[in-house]
Amino acid sequence: MKINNKPFRSIWVHPEDSKVVQIIDQRYLPHQLIINDLKTVEEAAHAIKEMLVRGAPLIGATAAYGMYFACLEAQSATNVEEYIEIAANQLMETRPTAINLQWALNRQTNAIKSAKNLEDKIAIAFKTANDICDEDVDICKKIGEFGLPLIEKLSKEKNGAPVNILTHCNAGWIATVDWGTATSPIYQAHDKGIAVHVWVDETRPRNQGARLTAWELGEHGIPHSVIVDNVGGHLMQHGMVDMCIVGTDRTTYTGDVANKIGTYLKALAAHDNGVPFYVALPSTTIDWECKDGFTIPIEQRDSKEVTLIQGLHENEIKKVQLTPDKSNAANYAFDVTPARLVTALITEKGICDASEDGILKLFPEKHFDYAQ
Amino acid sequence: MKINNKPFRSIWVHPEDSKVVQIIDQRYLPHQLIINDLKTVEEAAHAIKEMLVRGAPLIGATAAYGMYFACLEAQSATNVEEYIEIAANQLMETRPTAINLQWALNRQTNAIKSAKNLEDKIAIAFKTANDICDEDVDICKKIGEFGLPLIEKLSKEKNGAPVNILTHCNAGWIATVDWGTATSPIYQAHDKGIAVHVWVDETRPRNQGARLTAWELGEHGIPHSVIVDNVGGHLMQHGMVDMCIVGTDRTTYTGDVANKIGTYLKALAAHDNGVPFYVALPSTTIDWECKDGFTIPIEQRDSKEVTLIQGLHENEIKKVQLTPDKSNAANYAFDVTPARLVTALITEKGICDASEDGILKLFPEKHFDYAQ
Repeated sequence: MKINNKPFRSIWVHPEDSKVVQIIDQRYLPHQLIINDLKTVEEAAHAIKEMLVRGAPLIGATAAYGMYFACLEAQSATNVEEYIEIAANQLMETRPTAINLQWALNRQTNAIKSAKNLEDKIAIAFKTANDICDEDVDICKKIGEFGLPLIEKLSKEKNGAPVNILTHCNAGWIATVDWGTATSPIYQAHDKGIAVHVWVDETRPRNQGARLTAWELGEHGIPHSVIVDNVGGHLMQHGMVDMCIVGTDRTTYTGDVANKIGTYLKALAAHDNGVPFYVALPSTTIDWECKDGFTIPIEQRDSKEVTLIQGLHENEIKKVQLTPDKSNAANYAFDVTPARLVTALITEKGICDASEDGILKLFPEKHFDYAQ
Repeated sequence: MKINNKPFRSIWVHPEDSKVVQIIDQRYLPHQLIINDLKTVEEAAHAIKEMLVRGAPLIGATAAYGMYFACLEAQSATNVEEYIEIAANQLMETRPTAINLQWALNRQTNAIKSAKNLEDKIAIAFKTANDICDEDVDICKKIGEFGLPLIEKLSKEKNGAPVNILTHCNAGWIATVDWGTATSPIYQAHDKGIAVHVWVDETRPRNQGARLTAWELGEHGIPHSVIVDNVGGHLMQHGMVDMCIVGTDRTTYTGDVANKIGTYLKALAAHDNGVPFYVALPSTTIDWECKDGFTIPIEQRDSKEVTLIQGLHENEIKKVQLTPDKSNAANYAFDVTPARLVTALITEKGICDASEDGILKLFPEKHFDYAQ
């Protein structure tokens, strides 16, 4: 999508040096647009762990380039296979919840193993990382195409009045390579001239909504209002939300959805008020081995993300302390929304019920995978 | 309760000048303890409107002293009755949702009207304001006494392991004159040696939990953890919350609860996970004329409360901007939790169902009031 009228992806190969990959350092958005070079496994792992990049698809893409860097670095290693394996483990350990990370690393590892010599490994790792990015753009575009009619239908029911869509966290284009997942139907509706208005959940503690989703939507010219995470229930009680769309970090093959902490609360409110609650996802975020969402590991992050907050003060980015010195804080990063609260999943293959049956209708080839 | 081992109330008459009332300016907590003098109607109205004081009972107490100031100021007014009426209206307009404000102003207006001359009006207004404070302390203490057995029971069931209590916003002693409402059972349990641990919802946008409840509990030595507002549902899904206790700004005589925005979401999660959800309230916050919580006016506040946040940076209190310049924000201050999600109300008269029948059993004298 666009930043200042210039088309961007969230990760791309340096136009003048194919050994360098560039990313937007999302920690400084929306106040500063800082572009970083990644050249090493270490830098790729750091970018994921410290959340310069975030969002399941972008984490996967970054890890894929990380494996490409591993092949480049292996040129000076005594044991190539071992070096690449250690790199894969290092990248895998950066974030425990995102299933895409594992998926991208497995794909890269298999691709790299298939190459006979190191030169070929480098080439195939580069191609695989690029393919993962291009495929992600295509997948996200398709998610939008499938989601668009849901918004169109609501728009018609409202005689063209703005469709109010609530989203949580950032499942936007900068969480993917382009388009986003939850935002893809919104961008496509807006581009088609359908009036939409987005309620943007702030998404404490890291404020991905207030910082990133709001920024994305603003740059693209989509009307939106930032709200604190407490507000969505009230809006739904009062008919001010027509639909919710969120992303997911991992969805079980039974339809349980792990996503940013607080998603579950919005799903409860949607259910209580008859508001449809959609989850937009590339099928790579479906965990075909996980039956019960409550077995998904939930990352606990540094309590400083709760006690300190970053913002702009006199044109400088500063962190301020919110809590008393004496107080502890706990920081659970994700929660699991049970399938019963999810109206439907929007995937690149179509829309389906959030259930084993629904998912298998879209992905019949998976039928025996998990049963083995 | 105590600050630095020294007993405090949240509002008190200046020990050396009975025409001056002192308050803690809660805007600077937990970082600075600033005590302000109130001497005029204007200052009392400002203190309520700008939230130097907040919490339904403390708002009522402050407004009551505001009416005392009105009587003092009326000494130089051409029309005493008119001056006092204008002051009452000015104070009434400061915050639209809190029912205590209306209750305290009505009580003062009636008391002042009963006095024959201005000297008597001043005396009765002073006495009435003091009485409102003393009665509030007594009421909150009783709420704690009735709530305490609920915690004791859970403690026994857990063989003395800490009882995990989630609270939202600040219904603590600094929201009342002393003890608090939601916190009163917690203080009494702790003081009795029962192990408790409080999950303190941050409570965006004004962070009354992270700033005030955390500070109160910390000063009193009660174990607690600050969490962002998104976390409570996850904790309840995992058995990490034994009970919720919140306060209320206004409760209908049918048991619908208006409280800080986000309360509804926690009540939904409690209901979904079988966690008891209690609302602690002085009966003055019951609106005997309101049958349906959804008719309670919900205050919308300045969007800057969402887009800017205040905290401590290098020992100075600073505000930082969280959102992009281009983004709007909406700021709804309260929501309504329907009675069906409330396990019980804890009042100064005892515990009752959140229903017309339940409430009328505790307050039989109200039976015909609202039916008139």
